[in-house]
Amino acid sequence: MDAYAPRPEHKFSFGLWTVGWRGADPFGLPTREPLEATEAVERLAELGAWGISFHDDDLIPFGASASERSSRVDAFRKALDACGLVVPMATTNLFTHPVFKDGAFTANDRDVRRYALRKTLRNIDLAASLGASTYVLWGGREGAESPAAKDVGCALDRYAEALNLLCSYVRDQGYPIRFALEPKPNEPRGDILLPTIGHALGFISQLEEPSRVGLNPEVGHEQMAGLSMVHGVAQALWQDKLFHIDLNGQNGPRYDQDLRFGNGDVKTAFFLVDLLERAGYSGPRHFDFKPARTEDYSGVWAAAAGCMRNYLIFAERARAFRADPEVQEALLASRVDGLAVPTVGPDETLASLADDAFDVEEAAVRGMHYERLDQLALDHLFGVR
Amino acid sequence: MDAYAPRPEHKFSFGLWTVGWRGADPFGLPTREPLEATEAVERLAELGAWGISFHDDDLIPFGASASERSSRVDAFRKALDACGLVVPMATTNLFTHPVFKDGAFTANDRDVRRYALRKTLRNIDLAASLGASTYVLWGGREGAESPAAKDVGCALDRYAEALNLLCSYVRDQGYPIRFALEPKPNEPRGDILLPTIGHALGFISQLEEPSRVGLNPEVGHEQMAGLSMVHGVAQALWQDKLFHIDLNGQNGPRYDQDLRFGNGDVKTAFFLVDLLERAGYSGPRHFDFKPARTEDYSGVWAAAAGCMRNYLIFAERARAFRADPEVQEALLASRVDGLAVPTVGPDETLASLADDAFDVEEAAVRGMHYERLDQLALDHLFGVR
Amino acid sequence: MDAYAPRPEHKFSFGLWTVGWRGADPFGLPTREPLEATEAVERLAELGAWGISFHDDDLIPFGASASERSSRVDAFRKALDACGLVVPMATTNLFTHPVFKDGAFTANDRDVRRYALRKTLRNIDLAASLGASTYVLWGGREGAESPAAKDVGCALDRYAEALNLLCSYVRDQGYPIRFALEPKPNEPRGDILLPTIGHALGFISQLEEPSRVGLNPEVGHEQMAGLSMVHGVAQALWQDKLFHIDLNGQNGPRYDQDLRFGNGDVKTAFFLVDLLERAGYSGPRHFDFKPARTEDYSGVWAAAAGCMRNYLIFAERARAFRADPEVQEALLASRVDGLAVPTVGPDETLASLADDAFDVEEAAVRGMHYERLDQLALDHLFGVR
Amino acid sequence: MDAYAPRPEHKFSFGLWTVGWRGADPFGLPTREPLEATEAVERLAELGAWGISFHDDDLIPFGASASERSSRVDAFRKALDACGLVVPMATTNLFTHPVFKDGAFTANDRDVRRYALRKTLRNIDLAASLGASTYVLWGGREGAESPAAKDVGCALDRYAEALNLLCSYVRDQGYPIRFALEPKPNEPRGDILLPTIGHALGFISQLEEPSRVGLNPEVGHEQMAGLSMVHGVAQALWQDKLFHIDLNGQNGPRYDQDLRFGNGDVKTAFFLVDLLERAGYSGPRHFDFKPARTEDYSGVWAAAAGCMRNYLIFAERARAFRADPEVQEALLASRVDGLAVPTVGPDETLASLADDAFDVEEAAVRGMHYERLDQLALDHLFGVR
Repeated sequence: MDAYAPRPEHKFSFGLWTVGWRGADPFGLPTREPLEATEAVERLAELGAWGISFHDDDLIPFGASASERSSRVDAFRKALDACGLVVPMATTNLFTHPVFKDGAFTANDRDVRRYALRKTLRNIDLAASLGASTYVLWGGREGAESPAAKDVGCALDRYAEALNLLCSYVRDQGYPIRFALEPKPNEPRGDILLPTIGHALGFISQLEEPSRVGLNPEVGHEQMAGLSMVHGVAQALWQDKLFHIDLNGQNGPRYDQDLRFGNGDVKTAFFLVDLLERAGYSGPRHFDFKPARTEDYSGVWAAAAGCMRNYLIFAERARAFRADPEVQEALLASRVDGLAVPTVGPDETLASLADDAFDVEEAAVRGMHYERLDQLALDHLFGVR
Repeated sequence: MDAYAPRPEHKFSFGLWTVGWRGADPFGLPTREPLEATEAVERLAELGAWGISFHDDDLIPFGASASERSSRVDAFRKALDACGLVVPMATTNLFTHPVFKDGAFTANDRDVRRYALRKTLRNIDLAASLGASTYVLWGGREGAESPAAKDVGCALDRYAEALNLLCSYVRDQGYPIRFALEPKPNEPRGDILLPTIGHALGFISQLEEPSRVGLNPEVGHEQMAGLSMVHGVAQALWQDKLFHIDLNGQNGPRYDQDLRFGNGDVKTAFFLVDLLERAGYSGPRHFDFKPARTEDYSGVWAAAAGCMRNYLIFAERARAFRADPEVQEALLASRVDGLAVPTVGPDETLASLADDAFDVEEAAVRGMHYERLDQLALDHLFGVR
Repeated sequence: MDAYAPRPEHKFSFGLWTVGWRGADPFGLPTREPLEATEAVERLAELGAWGISFHDDDLIPFGASASERSSRVDAFRKALDACGLVVPMATTNLFTHPVFKDGAFTANDRDVRRYALRKTLRNIDLAASLGASTYVLWGGREGAESPAAKDVGCALDRYAEALNLLCSYVRDQGYPIRFALEPKPNEPRGDILLPTIGHALGFISQLEEPSRVGLNPEVGHEQMAGLSMVHGVAQALWQDKLFHIDLNGQNGPRYDQDLRFGNGDVKTAFFLVDLLERAGYSGPRHFDFKPARTEDYSGVWAAAAGCMRNYLIFAERARAFRADPEVQEALLASRVDGLAVPTVGPDETLASLADDAFDVEEAAVRGMHYERLDQLALDHLFGVR
Repeated sequence: MDAYAPRPEHKFSFGLWTVGWRGADPFGLPTREPLEATEAVERLAELGAWGISFHDDDLIPFGASASERSSRVDAFRKALDACGLVVPMATTNLFTHPVFKDGAFTANDRDVRRYALRKTLRNIDLAASLGASTYVLWGGREGAESPAAKDVGCALDRYAEALNLLCSYVRDQGYPIRFALEPKPNEPRGDILLPTIGHALGFISQLEEPSRVGLNPEVGHEQMAGLSMVHGVAQALWQDKLFHIDLNGQNGPRYDQDLRFGNGDVKTAFFLVDLLERAGYSGPRHFDFKPARTEDYSGVWAAAAGCMRNYLIFAERARAFRADPEVQEALLASRVDGLAVPTVGPDETLASLADDAFDVEEAAVRGMHYERLDQLALDHLFGVR
C-alpha cells in the first residue's frame, strides 16, 4: 500500500473550495457544515498533499471587513507554514454573487466588468504575496443562454482586453505569475465562451502577450463535450500551454459531476497520467472535484486520499506499461515511432514525392495491431501482467 | 414563395458528394444509383445554386486512367460553363480507400503520409485550374481509437508539416488558394485530431504561414460535441478565419446525421444565418448534408432546394428581427450594445478602477431582460410579428 | 396577436416552484427575492393560466408550525378562488432537505424511507383537499453515483413497495387521484432510477395497481438522454399512460436547463404540440421551467407568457399543417397512412405470407418522400405557406 | 495468465458478423477480405469460445439459391460439430438491403412488412434446427428522421402485431425459442423505436404473450443515450427479462463504436460483470463488437480474445471485491443491506408510520461512506489489494 502513499514531491494540490464544498446542488441544500481554511490545510498536509489553492471568497467571505480579511489571511498563512503546504495557484470567484449573473469580464454592463477586474487585481496581489505562480481564470459566467443576448465578437474583444490588462498588471508589478484559462462548454451558462481547450488556445493567439497566458484544462469539462482529454492536453503541451491542470472525473455529456480523480472514465485517467508523466509536466497535479453530497467529512477526506492514490496507481502502471518489452515490441509493430519521422525530410522537396514507389493496395492491407496494443494497456491498468 | 427563390448572388453551393450520396450507411447498402457529375451540375443550376464543390474521387473514380480522368474533367468543365456554375472549393478524399485507415497526413506509416500529400497536390492543381479559391482539408481519418496508438504531439508535428508544405506549394505555384480546415470531434475515428473550431484555431497559430489557413466549420460537427455553432463561428470570424462554411443539420451528440440545413436545431440555424449576414460573410453558403437514405432522386432535389429555401427564410426573418423597433428597444434594455465599449477606456488606466462608485447589490438586482429578447427572436422566426 | 392569447380552456398550468425559482444554481446564489404563493396565483391568472401546481415545501416552508401551515394554505386557497385558478396537480419535495441526500423511497436508511412516505401522504391529503387529480412523483434523489452504493434490484423493490402503498392509500381514502412518475436520467444523482419514459413504463407494469400509475414526462429530461420526446410521449399515449406532461426546453445532453417552452429544440416542441393536440390529450399543459437567472420578475412573467404563446403558435401551425391539402397529398405519397393497416389481416394467417408476389428490388427503389414532407412541416412552422 | 483462459463453461459467444465485419464505415470501404463462416467457427473454438450467433444473411448470402443455402448451412453445421461450438442465438438481417430503408415490421409499406415477417420466419426455422433458444430482434431500421414521417402509435401497433405473430409461430411450431428485443436509441435511423431497455420493457408489457419476449441489451446502445448499463440490466433482471446480453464498449453519446468488451467505460464493464455473476445470469456472454477497421485478421482475433480475457479479469476482481472483509464492512457502513428490508413490514400498516420517532436533522448528517466504498471497488479493479 505504501507504494501509493502521496508525498510532497508528487506535487498534489487541492482547491480549498473542493474539500470545503458543502454539498448544495441545484435541487438540494448543503449537507455539510463549513470547513475552516486552516483545518483544510492541516488535513490535506496530513494526507500527503503539497499545495492548496483558493478563490478569494473561499478564504475571505465576500464583503468581509479589512480586519477580518487580514486575520483570515494571517491564520491561513500560519497554517501553511506550520504544515509545510504551498499555494501554487489562486483564482477569483466571479460567479457566486448575483452581480455576475451575466458575466464578469464580458458582462453587458460596463460597471460590472470594471468591478470584476478590480476584484481580480485585488486577489492577484494576495496570490502573489502567498507565492502563487499561476493565476487561474475560469469564466463560468462568461456566456449566454440566447444568441440574441450577447454579441460574441464584442464579448471576445472585452475578454481579450481583460486578459491584456491583467498581463500588463503582473508585468508592471513584477509578479512571477502566469495566467491559466480554464475552459468549460456549459453550466452554469447555456453556452460558455472559450468552451474547450482548443477555443482557449485560439483565443490566446490573439492576445498582446500570449506567453503570459496558458491553460488549466479540467478532465470533466472536456468530457462534458465528449472530447478526449488526452488529445486536448497533448495539444496544449504541443503549444507549450499546459500551465496547470484540474484532475477529476466525469461520465460524459451531462451535468458537471466533479467526481474524484480515477472515478468516471478510468481508461482516460490512466492515459492522462501516462501523458503527463512522459511529457515531464512539472506543474501541480491539482484535484478539482466535489466529494459526493452523500458524505460527511470522513468521506471528504477519503475522496481526497483516493484522488492521490489513483494518480499514483496510474503512474506506476503507466511506467510498467512503457517498460514492458512486449509493449515496446507492440508499439513497433504498430509503427507508433514512425510518426516522429518527418514526412518530407530536411534534404527533400515536394518534388521528391514523385519518386516514391508505392503500392496503395499493398499498403492498404497492413494491419495496425492496435487492438493488441490497447489490450496490453488494459492488462497493465488491471495489473495482470 | 418567390421571396425564397435562390439566385446565384446568394452564393449557394453544394458538394458533388452531397447530392451524389448513394445512401450507404454502417448498416445498409446504397439505395440510389450513381449520379453523373454533369447531371448534378445541371440540376443544381436549375434549382438556383451558384457553385459546386468536389473531392478528387467524386469527379474521377479512384485509380482512373489518364484518359478517363481527362474526359471526366472536360465533361464537368463543359457542364459548368453551360450552366453558369462555379467551383468555389475543392478537397481531397483521404478517407474512403483502406490505405487511409490509420490517417493520411498523420498516418503512422510514412509512405502513406507521402501518398496523401501527393494525392492532395494533384487535386490542388485541378482545383486551381477550375478556379477554386478555397481548398478544404477534413482530416476525418486523422485520429485514434486508443491513446496508445498515436503519439499526439508527433501527429500534430506531422499535421503542421503537411500544412506548411501545402502552403509553400500554393505560394510557389502562385495559386490564389487558401486552405480551410474542417474540424470534427469523432466518426469515423474514435477521436479525431482538431476536433472543434477552437482546436483548429489553436493549431493554425502554430503554422508557418497562418494567413493562408482558416476554417470550414460544419454545423453538425460542432453540435456532435454539444457546442454552440453560433459562438464557434463568431470566434472564427473574430480571428478572421471563417474562410468557408458547411451548412447542415444535426440533433446533438450522436452519429453524424448530415441533415439538410434548417432541419435539426432550427433556432441555431436561424441565429447562424443572422450572424453570417450581419458579419458580412462573403464566402460560399455551402450545403454539406446527406439527403435521407429513404429518398429517391426526387427527394435529393427536394432536400437541396429545402436547404436554400430555409437559408433565405432565416435571412429574411433575421433582417426583420434586427429592423423591428421593439427589438431594438429590447436590445438596449438588455444593454447588448454596452459590450462594445472598452472596459478601460483609451484615456484610462487600471488605477482608474479604484475611483468607481459601484453598488454591488444594486447592480446585482438589475434584470437583463433576455427572456423577452429571446422570445422576440422566436416570434420573428415563426413570423408572428 | 390575440390569436395567441391564453385562455383557461387551454389548460395551461405552472409550478409554484417554477415562477418562484429564485435563481440559485450550483455556482451561484439566488438573484431574485422570494415570491409569495398568492402573488404567483394572481399574476398567473392575469396572464391567462388555468392552473397552478406545488410541492408541499413550496407552499408551506419545511418545518413550519401547524398554524403557519394552516394560514398559508388558507391564503393560497383564497387566492385560487379569487382568481379562478385550479390545482390540477401536486407533488412532494423529497430532494431539497439533506435528509434525502441518498434518496427517499429508495434510501438505504429505512427510517428515511418511512419519513418520505409520511411526508408524501401528508401532502396527498392536502392535494386532495385542493382538488388535485394528479400526484406527481419525481424521484430525483432515487439513484446513485457508484454502482457499489445501491442494490438496484432491492431499490426497485422498495420503489414498487412505495407506489403500491400510495395506491392503496388513495384507494382507501377514496381520493380521485392518479400518480404520475416523472423520469429523469441524471442530475442531481449520477444515475437516477427510472431514467426515461420507457423505464417508468416498464416499472409500472410490475405494480399491484398499474392503472393508478402513469407518467409525467418532461421535455428536457428525455432530451438530456438524447431521446425523442415525440416518440416517448407517443409510446406513453399508446400505453394509455400520459397522465400529465411537463413542457420546457433543453439543448441536448448537458445539465438540466429548464428553458421556457419553445426555446431549445424548436422543431421537437412543434411536433410535440402536434401530437398532443391530435391525440386529444385532455390533461394540463404544465410548464415546468426555470426563468433565466439573469432575469428580474419582469423576465419571469415574460418567460411564463412566452411558454403559453409558443404553445398556441405551435398548435395553430400544426392545425394548418394537417389541414393543408398539399401536406395531405404528401402524407399519402409517403404512405404514412399505410401503417394503420394490419400487416396480417383479420382473415389472414401467417401462411398467407407465402402467397405474396413481392419484387424486393422494385420495392427497394421506391422513394419515401420524407424530405419534402419534413420541409412542408418547417414551412408551416415558419408560417411561409 | 491461465487464470483468464476462456473455457466453454464460461458461455462466451460471438456474432458471425462480429468477427466477420470487414471494416466498411460511413466514410470508408472494407479493409478486410470476407471471412468464411467455417473459419470463424474454427478460430473461435480455438480461442475458447462456446457459441456463435448469426443473421440469416451472414451465413447465406442474400438471394442465394436453395442449393447454395443448403451447402452453406451444411458446412456450418459440420464445422460446429467438429469444433464443439453451439448456436445459442440467431437473428434476422432486416437492415442491410435497401428494401428495409424505411423499416421492416414498421415500414409504411405493408408489402415490406410482410416480406420482413417472411424473412424472419424462415430464419427462425433455421435457428430452431441449429438449436438456438434465443431469437434476437434488433429493429435498427424501425424509426424515423422526421416526426411527420411516422405515426408512432400505428408503428407500435404494427411492432406489437409482428411480435404477437412471431410468438404464435414458435408456439405453434413447438420451438423452444424465446425472443429478445435489442434496444438502440439511434443510428442508422434518426430516432429508433424502443430506444432503451426501458422502452422495450414497457412495450413487452402490452404484448399478447409477454413471457415469450425479453431483452438483449447492448452495453454501447445504452451508453449512446448516456444511460447506466448497470442500472438498465438490473431493471431487466428485476423484471425477469434478461434473456441475452451484448457485451461491447462505447465512449458515451456519439456514433455506435462497438469497441471490444472492456474497452470504453472500464468501470461500468467491471460492475456489469459483477452484477451478472451475482445475479446468477446463466445465458450467453455474447460479444457484439466491431474489431477496429485498422486491423488485419490477427487484430480481429486479438480483439475477440481480449473480450473474453477482460470478462474473466472483471469476474475475478468482482469476486475478490465481494469477498474482501473490508468491503463487507464498508457495505454495512453504507447500509447497502438496509434496502432489502421492506419499508413497511408485513405486520405493519401505513398508520404505523405515525409512530416513528425520527429526528430529521440527525438523520440528515449521517454520512453514507460511498466515496470509500467506491474506491475499494477501484482498488480491486486495479488489483492493488
